[in-house]
Amino acid sequence: MNKIENVLAQRYAASEIKKIWSGEGKVILERELWIAVMKAQRDLGLDIPVEAIKSYEKVKENVNLENIAAREKINKHDVKARIEEFCDLAGFEHIHKGMTSRDLTENVEQLQVFSSLKIIREKAITALIKMSEKAKEHQNLIITARTHNVAAQPTTFGKRIAMFGQELLLGVEALDRIIENYAVRGIKGAVGTQLDQITLFNGDKKKVFDFENAIAKHLGISKTINAVGQVYPRSLDYEVVSSLYNLTAGAGSFCTTLRIMAGQETANEGFVKGQVGSSAMPHKMNSRSCERVNGFRLILSGYVAMLAGLSGNQWNEGDVSCSVVRRVALPDAFFATDGLFETFLTILNQMEVFAAVIKKENDYYFPFLSTTTIMMEAVKKGVGRENAHEIIKETAVAVVRDLRNGKIAENDLLERLSKSELGLSYDELKAIIDRGEELVGSTAAQVEEFARQVEVWSKKFPNAKNYCVGAIL
Amino acid sequence: MNKIENVLAQRYAASEIKKIWSGEGKVILERELWIAVMKAQRDLGLDIPVEAIKSYEKVKENVNLENIAAREKINKHDVKARIEEFCDLAGFEHIHKGMTSRDLTENVEQLQVFSSLKIIREKAITALIKMSEKAKEHQNLIITARTHNVAAQPTTFGKRIAMFGQELLLGVEALDRIIENYAVRGIKGAVGTQLDQITLFNGDKKKVFDFENAIAKHLGISKTINAVGQVYPRSLDYEVVSSLYNLTAGAGSFCTTLRIMAGQETANEGFVKGQVGSSAMPHKMNSRSCERVNGFRLILSGYVAMLAGLSGNQWNEGDVSCSVVRRVALPDAFFATDGLFETFLTILNQMEVFAAVIKKENDYYFPFLSTTTIMMEAVKKGVGRENAHEIIKETAVAVVRDLRNGKIAENDLLERLSKSELGLSYDELKAIIDRGEELVGSTAAQVEEFARQVEVWSKKFPNAKNYCVGAIL
Amino acid sequence: MNKIENVLAQRYAASEIKKIWSGEGKVILERELWIAVMKAQRDLGLDIPVEAIKSYEKVKENVNLENIAAREKINKHDVKARIEEFCDLAGFEHIHKGMTSRDLTENVEQLQVFSSLKIIREKAITALIKMSEKAKEHQNLIITARTHNVAAQPTTFGKRIAMFGQELLLGVEALDRIIENYAVRGIKGAVGTQLDQITLFNGDKKKVFDFENAIAKHLGISKTINAVGQVYPRSLDYEVVSSLYNLTAGAGSFCTTLRIMAGQETANEGFVKGQVGSSAMPHKMNSRSCERVNGFRLILSGYVAMLAGLSGNQWNEGDVSCSVVRRVALPDAFFATDGLFETFLTILNQMEVFAAVIKKENDYYFPFLSTTTIMMEAVKKGVGRENAHEIIKETAVAVVRDLRNGKIAENDLLERLSKSELGLSYDELKAIIDRGEELVGSTAAQVEEFARQVEVWSKKFPNAKNYCVGAIL
Amino acid sequence: MNKIENVLAQRYAASEIKKIWSGEGKVILERELWIAVMKAQRDLGLDIPVEAIKSYEKVKENVNLENIAAREKINKHDVKARIEEFCDLAGFEHIHKGMTSRDLTENVEQLQVFSSLKIIREKAITALIKMSEKAKEHQNLIITARTHNVAAQPTTFGKRIAMFGQELLLGVEALDRIIENYAVRGIKGAVGTQLDQITLFNGDKKKVFDFENAIAKHLGISKTINAVGQVYPRSLDYEVVSSLYNLTAGAGSFCTTLRIMAGQETANEGFVKGQVGSSAMPHKMNSRSCERVNGFRLILSGYVAMLAGLSGNQWNEGDVSCSVVRRVALPDAFFATDGLFETFLTILNQMEVFAAVIKKENDYYFPFLSTTTIMMEAVKKGVGRENAHEIIKETAVAVVRDLRNGKIAENDLLERLSKSELGLSYDELKAIIDRGEELVGSTAAQVEEFARQVEVWSKKFPNAKNYCVGAIL
Repeated sequence: MNKIENVLAQRYAASEIKKIWSGEGKVILERELWIAVMKAQRDLGLDIPVEAIKSYEKVKENVNLENIAAREKINKHDVKARIEEFCDLAGFEHIHKGMTSRDLTENVEQLQVFSSLKIIREKAITALIKMSEKAKEHQNLIITARTHNVAAQPTTFGKRIAMFGQELLLGVEALDRIIENYAVRGIKGAVGTQLDQITLFNGDKKKVFDFENAIAKHLGISKTINAVGQVYPRSLDYEVVSSLYNLTAGAGSFCTTLRIMAGQETANEGFVKGQVGSSAMPHKMNSRSCERVNGFRLILSGYVAMLAGLSGNQWNEGDVSCSVVRRVALPDAFFATDGLFETFLTILNQMEVFAAVIKKENDYYFPFLSTTTIMMEAVKKGVGRENAHEIIKETAVAVVRDLRNGKIAENDLLERLSKSELGLSYDELKAIIDRGEELVGSTAAQVEEFARQVEVWSKKFPNAKNYCVGAIL
Repeated sequence: MNKIENVLAQRYAASEIKKIWSGEGKVILERELWIAVMKAQRDLGLDIPVEAIKSYEKVKENVNLENIAAREKINKHDVKARIEEFCDLAGFEHIHKGMTSRDLTENVEQLQVFSSLKIIREKAITALIKMSEKAKEHQNLIITARTHNVAAQPTTFGKRIAMFGQELLLGVEALDRIIENYAVRGIKGAVGTQLDQITLFNGDKKKVFDFENAIAKHLGISKTINAVGQVYPRSLDYEVVSSLYNLTAGAGSFCTTLRIMAGQETANEGFVKGQVGSSAMPHKMNSRSCERVNGFRLILSGYVAMLAGLSGNQWNEGDVSCSVVRRVALPDAFFATDGLFETFLTILNQMEVFAAVIKKENDYYFPFLSTTTIMMEAVKKGVGRENAHEIIKETAVAVVRDLRNGKIAENDLLERLSKSELGLSYDELKAIIDRGEELVGSTAAQVEEFARQVEVWSKKFPNAKNYCVGAIL
Repeated sequence: MNKIENVLAQRYAASEIKKIWSGEGKVILERELWIAVMKAQRDLGLDIPVEAIKSYEKVKENVNLENIAAREKINKHDVKARIEEFCDLAGFEHIHKGMTSRDLTENVEQLQVFSSLKIIREKAITALIKMSEKAKEHQNLIITARTHNVAAQPTTFGKRIAMFGQELLLGVEALDRIIENYAVRGIKGAVGTQLDQITLFNGDKKKVFDFENAIAKHLGISKTINAVGQVYPRSLDYEVVSSLYNLTAGAGSFCTTLRIMAGQETANEGFVKGQVGSSAMPHKMNSRSCERVNGFRLILSGYVAMLAGLSGNQWNEGDVSCSVVRRVALPDAFFATDGLFETFLTILNQMEVFAAVIKKENDYYFPFLSTTTIMMEAVKKGVGRENAHEIIKETAVAVVRDLRNGKIAENDLLERLSKSELGLSYDELKAIIDRGEELVGSTAAQVEEFARQVEVWSKKFPNAKNYCVGAIL
Repeated sequence: MNKIENVLAQRYAASEIKKIWSGEGKVILERELWIAVMKAQRDLGLDIPVEAIKSYEKVKENVNLENIAAREKINKHDVKARIEEFCDLAGFEHIHKGMTSRDLTENVEQLQVFSSLKIIREKAITALIKMSEKAKEHQNLIITARTHNVAAQPTTFGKRIAMFGQELLLGVEALDRIIENYAVRGIKGAVGTQLDQITLFNGDKKKVFDFENAIAKHLGISKTINAVGQVYPRSLDYEVVSSLYNLTAGAGSFCTTLRIMAGQETANEGFVKGQVGSSAMPHKMNSRSCERVNGFRLILSGYVAMLAGLSGNQWNEGDVSCSVVRRVALPDAFFATDGLFETFLTILNQMEVFAAVIKKENDYYFPFLSTTTIMMEAVKKGVGRENAHEIIKETAVAVVRDLRNGKIAENDLLERLSKSELGLSYDELKAIIDRGEELVGSTAAQVEEFARQVEVWSKKFPNAKNYCVGAIL
C-alpha cells in the first residue's frame, strides 16, 4: 500500500539503463569493482588465488536483495552486509582489502554514470542515423522557412531536419569528449591520502600507483584523478548532467518545431495504427510525444540545477550535503534522458509529412519570398532600382492587407505586379517563383554533408543503427 | 542622471574582457570579420583590391560610437550605419558583400565568446600555477583533514590545495576541449541556405564552401557548423556558460573551505597592508573575497539557467526569444568569471596560514585520529583485537565527553590509554602520534604530480605565469 | 572607453524604477531613512531639534555623487562619506545615531525592493486594465480554441485574452499579498541584538521597541522582523523575485500564444506607423516584442536561481556570500520586470487581429469541432448512437486525409455527411455549425467577470489606468 | 527485477503525504471529487438519488489498482476504467456527468497539491513550536555571534535559534497565505468554456456558476478561477513549489550553522542512543541529517526550476509540455519537503549543545568583542578618545598576532591593557567582560516575542504540537 515507484524509470526509461541504477544492478557493479580490485592486487603481489577471483566472477550476477537486507538488519552496516553476501556466495574472503566504504561507493557510482553515458551516446547516435535518413528522404521537399515564426525564404524539409540533426551531432561530439576524458576517483582512502592502500602494500607507493591505474584499466575509464578527498569533485556530476541537457537540445528544437508544424498541419508526429486522437474529433492528433520530449528537457534542467548546487561547494576533504541530492539527480537524469530518446526515436519513426498542405503554404508565401529576385530581374529589364523597390513594396503591402482582411483569398501579387510598371509579364514572374530548386541554395549539399558526418559515427558505433525502440506509452 | 552601469563589468572584471564586450570592442570584432570576409572573397576570385583591405585594416581600431549613432539616426539601421562608417574611414566600399545582418552579428558574437574563452582559459591557468606553488609551499604542513566538517585523518595543507587545484585542472581541461572544438555558424544567409553567397559566386558551390572555411581559418575557429538556420544553435551558448560554471568549481570549493578555516583561525584570505577588518575589532578579518568568489558562482548559475531556457527551444529556422537574454547573459557571465578569477588570484596571493593554530588543532585531534594504528600496535603486543577495540572505544568516548563538558581542557587520551590494559606505555603511544609524516600517506606524491600536470599547461600557455592581478575592490 | 552600461536598465526599464536603483536614488532613500530615524528618535525623547530634521528634508534630493566620492577618497569609508555630505548640506549633525552601516544599508535595500514592488504592482494593474479592455473589445470574435496546438472547440478571442489576464490577476493578487506583508529588518545593530540602540536609549528596551515600530510606520512597511542577525533573511529576496517571475506568467503565456497566432496570421503584435518588418518582405512582421517578453522571463528565472542560492544558506548571524549576488540580481530583476511590462503594454496597444483569417480558420475547423453536436442531432432523428458515431468518424477521417493530401481544398464534411445515412440535410447540418454563439459557452460571462475583478483593482489603484507607456526600442 | 522505487517517497517522506500521491490515494481523491460533483449537481436539480451518493461514499476507500488496470487493458482508457470500477463498486452510474477527463484530473491534482500543502503547513508549525522551546531553553546561554564566520559580538544560543525560527515563521506565514488564497480550476470543460456543463443544465448559466462554487466549497478550496483554458495556469504550480523552497529556508540556515558549530564542537545534531559515528573514531559524529536538510533544499530548487519552465509558457488554451514534468516535480517536491521536516524535527529533538566548549570560545573572544565598551570606560576615566582607540587597537592587534603565531596560548588582552596607559585596572577590565548579560542586548525579549508569535500558530493548529516524528534513516 502506498508504495511509490520512480515514474521516470517505470514509465519512460528502457531496461538497459534501469538495470544499471536498480538495486540489483548496483550490487553487480560493486562486485565488478571488487573483482577488478582483486585482480589488480593479485597482479601486484598480494596473495589472492586465481580460483577465488573465478569463484567471485561466477556468482557475480547472483543477486538477492532480500538476503542482503536481512544481513544488514543484523550487522547494521549496508556495505558490510553486501561484502558478507558476496563472500558467502563465492566461498572466499578476499574482497574489499584496504578499502573504505567510500572507495567502493564513489567508484561504483562513477561506473554507473560512465556506463549510462555510453548507453546514451549510442542511443543518440541511433537518433542521428534516423535523422540523417529522414533528411535525405525529404531533401527535395521544398518548404517555407520561417524566422520569428514568420515566412522568410524557401528551404527544404530535409534541410530543416539536418539543421536540428546538426545540433544533436554537436551534442554527441561534446558528450563523446566527456566520456573519453572521464576520470575516476580511484582507491584513495578516507580522506584521499591512500593511507590504507600504502599500509596494505607495505609502504610501496609505486605499487599503490600501479594498483590504481590497473583498476582504471579494468573498468575502462581512461584516467584517475590524482588529488582528491573523501569524494571525487562534484563538478564532474554537474558536467555530466549538463552535457545531457546539451545533448538533447537538437531533439528539443526539432520537437518544438514539429508542434508548430502540427498546428499548421504541414507535418505531425504521426500515430500508430489504431490510435486516434479523439473519436469525435478525428483531426485532433495531439503532439503528445513532442511535448513529452520538451518536458523531459525541463526535467533535466532541474537536475542540472540540483547538481549545480553541489558543484564547487565542497567543505574541506568532503562534505557537500550531496548524498540525498545525488541519489535523486543522477539516476533520474539518466532515466529522463533515456526516456527522451525512446520518445524521440518513436517520433522519428512515425512522423507524417503533408506535402499538399506544404504546397499550399508555399503557394501563399512564395510570391512574397521572391520579391528580391523579382526586383533584380526588373532592374535587368531597365527599371530603376529605387523605382522597382517602391512598386514592389507598395503592391506587396496592399496584397498582404487584402489577404488579412479577407478581400482576397489567394495571393495575387504576381498578377498585380504584371499590371504594374515593372515591365515583367505574369509568365516571367511565375518563372521566377518556380525556380524553387535554385532558391533553396545549398540545402542538398548540407543534407549530404550532414549524412556524411553521421556516417562516421555510425561506423564507429556499429550497434547504433540496429537499435529498435520499444512501444512507448 | 540615473545612468546605471554594469556592476559586474565596472566593479569586478578586468579591462581585457571588457574591451571585447564594450561598444567599441564589438565594432572592432565586426570589422575584423569583414576583413576576413574580404580576404577570403578576394582569394576566391572576387574583385577586391589588396589596398582596399589594407585601408580597412589600417582604420580598424578607429572607433567613434557617436559618429555611428549619428549615422543610425539618419538611416534607421544599426548595421548599415556601421558599414557606412567603416567604409568612409577606409575610403572603399568592399565590405559586407553577399551578407545579411545575421551573417555579421552571429559570427561576431561567436568571436566575442571565443576570444573571451581564451582569456579565461589563460587566467585559469594562472590560478593553477599559483595553486601549484602554494601546494608545494605547504606540502609538509600537516593539518587535520575533515569530512562532514569533523576531524577524520591527517593530511597536509599542500595536499588540500592540490585537491582543489585538481578540480580546477579538470575544469581547465574541459574548457580547453570546448575551445578547441568550438564551431562557428559561418556565412549562411537569412535562413541558412547560403542563397546570397551562392548568387555572389555565380552558383559555384565549391567556392561558397571554400569561402566559409577560409573565414573560419582567418578567425582561428577550428570548424564551421554545416547545417544551420538563421542562427547558430543556442545550445552552444549553454555549453559555453555551463563550462564556465564547471571551470570555477575548484575555486568555489577552495574558498568555501577557506571561509571555514578562517572561522577556526587556521588560515584566512589575508589582507593588504593597511587594511583592518574593523578598527574596534582587530581580530575581525572577514572573508570578503572568498565570499565574493562563492557569490560569483551563484551569479554564473543564474546565467546558466537563462541560457538553458534558450537551448533546444528553437522555433523553425530561428526564433528563440533569445535577443534580450543573450545580450545580458553572455557578457555578464564572462564578466562574472573574470571577476571571479581576479578575486581568486588575489586570495591566493594574500592568503595567510597560521601554523601555531593548526598545530594546536592537530594536538587536540591526533590522539583520536590515531586509534586505528594504536589498536594494531596493541594487537602486535599480544592484546586480543576485540578487547583492544573495546578499551580504546570506551576510553576515547570518555575523553570526548569530558572535553565537551569542560571536565578537561586538553586531550588526555594517550595518558588514559597508557594506564589501561592495552599494554602500551605513554612513550610508545606518543611515538605513534608523532609519525605524522607517515600518516599523511601519498600527499607529497600527489602534490608533485599535480605540479607536474600544471607545468604542462604552464608551458603550453607561457603568458599565464606572468599575469599580475590588479588591485580589487 | 570600454565603459559598460547596464543593458536592462538603459535599454528597457523606465525611469521611475531606474531612479530607485541609481546611485542618486539610493542616496535619497538612505537619507529618507535617516530622516525617519531622527523623527522617531526625537519622538522618543532624544534631543534632535525640529529645524534640524527640516533642514535635512530640504536638501534630501540634492545629491552630488562626485562630492561623495571625493569624501570617500579621504576617509576611506563609503557610509561615512555619505553621512558627512548629508550633514554638511543640512548644516546639522544628527543622523545615524546608534546605527551601524548594516542598519542603514539593509533597511535601504529593503526600501528599494519595497518601492520597486509598488511600482511594478501598479504597472501590472495597468496591464490588467488594458487586457480587460481588449477582452471586452473581442468578446464576440469567435476563434478556434486549440489544445496541444490543435483545434479543439470554439471560444472567443476575448475569452482567450481574459484567460491570460486571469493568470496575470492571480499574479497581481499574490504580489499584493507579499507587498502588504513585507517586513523590514529594522535597526537591530551588528548582530541583531540591538545593543547600540539600547545603549542610546539608556537601557530602555520599551523605547527601542517603539523606535523600530515608528520607523516601520514612517517607511510605510507593515511590520518589522523580530529576531534577525546582521542581515534580514535572504529568503525574503527569493520570495520577492520569484513572485516577479510568477507575476509575469500571464504575459508570458499571452505572448507565446500571440507568436503562434502570428505564424498563422490570425493576429500579431502590430507595428507602429512607418515600421515595416523588411523592405523586401512586407509580410514579414516579426514578433520581436513578444519574443522579448518571453526573453525577460528567462532572465528573471536566472535571477531567481541566483537568489535561491542565497536563501536558507546563512552562516551564523550573517554570512551568505550575498553581497555581489544581490548587487546584480535585485536591481536587474526589477529592470527586467519593468522592461517586460513596458513591452507588454506596447503589445497590448498595438496588437492587430485579422478577423478574415480567423473566419477562414473557423470555416476549416468548425465542421470537425461540431461532430459531437451533429451526432446528438442525428440520434434525436432516430439513428442509433453507435451507428451515427461510426458514420461520422469514418467520414471525418476521410475528409482529414483528403485535405492533408491535397485531394480537396475545402472542408466538405457537411456535404459528405448530408449524403450519408445520418438522416440530416446539408441545411440542417449547416445550422448546427452556425450556432457559434451557443458553442462558445460561458465565454461572455467569464470576460465580464474578469472585467469586474479588474475594476476592483483599478479603483484601488486609480493611477494605474492613466499610465502611458513610452516608446520602446 | 529492476523495479525502481521513488527514493524521496520510500526513504524520506512520511506516510500521510505518500498516501495522497500514491496510486491508491489519487483514486480516492478522484472519488471524493466525483462525490462532491454529484452532491452539487443534485442540489441544483439533477436527478441523482441520495442513496447513490451514499453508496459511492461507502466504497470510496475500497481501491484495487489491479482491477482498474485490468479494466483499462480492455477499454484502453484510464479515466473510463476508473469510472467503471467505482460505479460497479457502488452499484450506480451517476458520476462524471458533463465532465471531461481534464475536469477530473486537473481538479484532483489541485486537491493533491492543496492537501499536501496543509500537511506541510502543520508540520512546519510543529518545527516552529520545537524551535520556540529550544530558543527558550537556551535563552541564557551566551555565545559568540559571528558575521562572515568571524566572532563579532555576544548573543545567546536561544536568540540564534529564534533568528532562524523567525525565518521559518516568515515562510509559514507566506505559505499560509498561499493556502488560504489557493484557487481551483473548477469544472470548465475541454477548453474552459463550460460548454458541456451548460448543456447539462440546459443552458442555465446561473446553475453552472453555483455548481462550481458548490464544488469549491465541498473541497474546502476558497475560490475558483474564473477564466481558464483546458488547464489551470501552471504559474500556480510554480508559486506553490517556490513557496516550499521559501518555507524551508529557515531550516536550511539553521542546519548550515549547526554544521559549522559541529566543526567547532560547540554543538551538533546529536545521536540516538547506540549510534556512534565510527567505532574507531568516537569523536566523529557527522552532521548527516543537517547535510540532508541542505540537500533537500537543493532538490527543491531543481523542482522549482522544472516548474518555472512550464509557467508562463502556455500555448493557446493549453499545451505546456507539462504532463511528464508535473508527474515528477509535484509529488517529488512534496516528498522532499516532507522528508526535510521529518529530518529537521529529528535534529531539533536530538541536538546537543556543549556549554563548556562555548565558554572556552567566549573566553577567547570576549576581550576582543568588548573593546568598544572598554574604550568608552577609558574615556570616562579621562583618557582622550583617539588616544584610547590607538592603545586598544595596537594592543589587540599584537595579541591576535601572538595567538595565531603560537606565542601565547590564551588571550591576554586584558592583562596587557591593564599595563597600558589606559587607566583601567585588570579587575575593572574583567568586570566589563563579565557583563555578558548586558552585552546580549534584547535577545531575551526577542526570544520571548518569537515564542509569543509561535504560540499564535500553535493555537490555530492545535494538532501541530502533538506531532511525533518517526525514526529516520
